[in-house]
Amino acid sequence: MNNMNPTDSYAELLRHTRDVAVLNSCSAVLGWDQQTYMPQGGAAFRGEQLALLAGLAHQKATAPRIGELLAAIENTEVVADPDSLAAANIREIRHSYNRATKLPQRLVEELARVTTTAQQVWQEARSQNAYPLFQPHLEQILALKREEADTIGHTGERYDALLDEYEPGTTTADIQTLFEELSRHLVPLIQQITSRSTPNTEILRREYPVERQRLFAESAAAAIGFDFQAGRLDVTTHPFCSGFGPGDCRITTRYNPRFFSEAFFGVLHEAGHGMYEQGLPKDQFGTPSGAYCSLGIHESQSRFWENQIGRSFPFWQHFFPRLKQAFPTTIGSSSLEEFFAAINAVQPSLIRVEADEATYN
Amino acid sequence: MNNMNPTDSYAELLRHTRDVAVLNSCSAVLGWDQQTYMPQGGAAFRGEQLALLAGLAHQKATAPRIGELLAAIENTEVVADPDSLAAANIREIRHSYNRATKLPQRLVEELARVTTTAQQVWQEARSQNAYPLFQPHLEQILALKREEADTIGHTGERYDALLDEYEPGTTTADIQTLFEELSRHLVPLIQQITSRSTPNTEILRREYPVERQRLFAESAAAAIGFDFQAGRLDVTTHPFCSGFGPGDCRITTRYNPRFFSEAFFGVLHEAGHGMYEQGLPKDQFGTPSGAYCSLGIHESQSRFWENQIGRSFPFWQHFFPRLKQAFPTTIGSSSLEEFFAAINAVQPSLIRVEADEATYN
Repeated sequence: MNNMNPTDSYAELLRHTRDVAVLNSCSAVLGWDQQTYMPQGGAAFRGEQLALLAGLAHQKATAPRIGELLAAIENTEVVADPDSLAAANIREIRHSYNRATKLPQRLVEELARVTTTAQQVWQEARSQNAYPLFQPHLEQILALKREEADTIGHTGERYDALLDEYEPGTTTADIQTLFEELSRHLVPLIQQITSRSTPNTEILRREYPVERQRLFAESAAAAIGFDFQAGRLDVTTHPFCSGFGPGDCRITTRYNPRFFSEAFFGVLHEAGHGMYEQGLPKDQFGTPSGAYCSLGIHESQSRFWENQIGRSFPFWQHFFPRLKQAFPTTIGSSSLEEFFAAINAVQPSLIRVEADEATYN
Repeated sequence: MNNMNPTDSYAELLRHTRDVAVLNSCSAVLGWDQQTYMPQGGAAFRGEQLALLAGLAHQKATAPRIGELLAAIENTEVVADPDSLAAANIREIRHSYNRATKLPQRLVEELARVTTTAQQVWQEARSQNAYPLFQPHLEQILALKREEADTIGHTGERYDALLDEYEPGTTTADIQTLFEELSRHLVPLIQQITSRSTPNTEILRREYPVERQRLFAESAAAAIGFDFQAGRLDVTTHPFCSGFGPGDCRITTRYNPRFFSEAFFGVLHEAGHGMYEQGLPKDQFGTPSGAYCSLGIHESQSRFWENQIGRSFPFWQHFFPRLKQAFPTTIGSSSLEEFFAAINAVQPSLIRVEADEATYN
C-alpha cells in the first residue's frame, strides 16, 4: 500500500470499477429478461440470481482495496486539475464508495431479492387491478428502503439519503421548492386551458393494429437516431430503457390497440433515454464519466424527444403522411391539424403518462 | 480448519456449490439472450460479461475453502453409505474440483470470450454460407480446447480429457468401440433400406406458415409435458435447450416455411431435453445430484421424444387430425399413412438432423 504510484493506482482502480459495472450490467440483462420473456415459474429463482449478483457487485465495490487505491490517488497530481476526467472520476468513485461501504451486503441482497419478487406480483396485481396483492410487497420494499436510508444517514429528511443516489447533491427541500414554484404557474395554467373547449381526441382512440403500431414506432425511433443495431424494442407491462453497456441498449413499450399515444409517445420517450445511453462515451464505460450523470438529466432527454420534438408541428408535418400510409383506414380523411391538436390535449391526471391507465388492458 | 464438523462442512460446501450454480445460471441467461434477442452491436460486450461471470464462477469453484471442506467430509460418516446422495455429491464435487483447480482463470475467461464472439460470427457465416469467416474463430477455439485438455492431462488420447466433462468416465476408445459396433449393423441396414423405393416426402415440403407451425409445435410440446409456465420456446439459428434453474427452462427452434420436419421434430427434441431439466429435483439444485448426469443421458431424453415417440404411429394417430386442422389447405386430402411414411423416410446425411441444411435459409 505504501509507495503506490498514483497513476498505476488510478489504472487499477478503473479496472475494479469496470468489473463492478460489467457485473451490474449482467443484472440488467436478467432484469430485462424478467420483464420481457421470463416465464412466471422463474420468478423465485430470478430473485436468487439477482441477489447473488448484487451481493458480488457490492463486495467488489466495497473491497478495502478500493479504499486503499482512492487514498493513494487523492491529493496527487493525477487529480490536480479539478476539471479533468480523472478528478471527476475520483470524486464520484469516492462518493459511491463511502455510500456503499455503509450498506451491509445482506441488505443489498435482500433488496435485490424482494424487488424481483415484487415486480412479478405487481404485474399480476396490475392485470387484475388488485392492489391488495401488491401491498405487502410494497411495504417490504419501503421497510428496506427506510433501513437503507437510515444506514446511510441523513440530517432530518430520510428521503435525502435515497435521493442522493439519483440526483446527487439534491435534497427533498430543493425538490419541494422546485415543485412549489412549478405548481404556482402550472395549476392556474391548467385551469385556464381546461376551462376552454377541449380538443377532440377521438382520432387517437380509433383502431390501431398493434403490429403496425410497432413498425411505425420503430421506424420513428430509428429516424430520430435510436440505433437498432445496438438496441431493440420489446413489450413490457411498464415501459423502460435499460442500457446494458457499449453496443446494447434495450427499450420497451406497451401497446393499446385503441389508443395511439400510449405506445408511440412511450417509444419516443424510451428512445430518448436510449439515445442518451447510446451516446455515452464507450471507451469510458465502467467509469463515472462514462455513465449517466443523474436521473433528472436522463429524463430530460426522454421528455425532450417525447414532448418538445415528438409533439411539435414540424415533427408531424414529416410523420403524419407516413402515419396515414401505415393506418390508411384508421386515419381516413382526418387532417394533420386535427391530429396535432389531439396529441397536445391537456388534462390533469394522477400519473405523468397519458391518462389511460384505468382503461388499458 | 481443524476440528471441522463434517455435517456442518457438508452444509457449507453445498452453499458454495449452489452459489457457483447460480452464477453459471446467470451466464446461461446471457447466453440464451445472445442467441435469441441480443442486437448485433452487443456481441463484444457480451463476451466481456460472460468472461467475467466465468472467471468469478471459476474462482468460487476452485477456492481453497472447497478443498478444505472436501477434506473435512471425505472418509467421515457423512459419506459412509456410498449409495447416499451425500456420498454421490462429494464424489462428484471432488471430481469437478480436481479438474477445475488445474485450469488457470485466464484460460476459463478466454474461452468464454472467444466462444461468445465465435457464436456471433458463426451465425453470420452460416447465413452467408461463408465458412472462411468462421474458420479463424474455430481455430482459436480448437487451440484453447487443446490447451485445456493438456492442462487437465490425459494418457495419450487428448480428447479423453474433454470428453470426461460430458460423459464422465468414458474414453475415446469406448466411443470408438461403440460406433464401430453400431456402424457394423447400421451401414448394411441403411443400404438395405435405401435400395428399396424411397417414401415420398413431398407432403413435408409444402407451404407451412411459420406462425401456425409455432402454435402447433407449442401445443404438441405442452401435450407431451413441457411446462410453459416454467419455460418458453424461441427462435435461434441453431436449436438448443437451456435450463436456467428451478422453474425456468428455455427451448428454441428454427422454422422453415417449406419443410415441416425442421421445426416440429426440433421442438419435440428440445422439449425432451427441457422435460428432463424440468424434472430435476428442485430442492437439490446447485448440487451434483440436482443436475443432469451426462450429455448422453440428456440426449437420450430428447431423441426418445423426437424419434421413439414423435415418429411413432400412435403419436400421429392422435396428432394428424390436429395437423389437418392447423394446416387444412396444406394437408388437403393426404392421409395419415402417407405422412407417417414421409416422416420416417431414411437417408444418409452428413449431419444428424433432417438433411435440409443446404436449402434452409
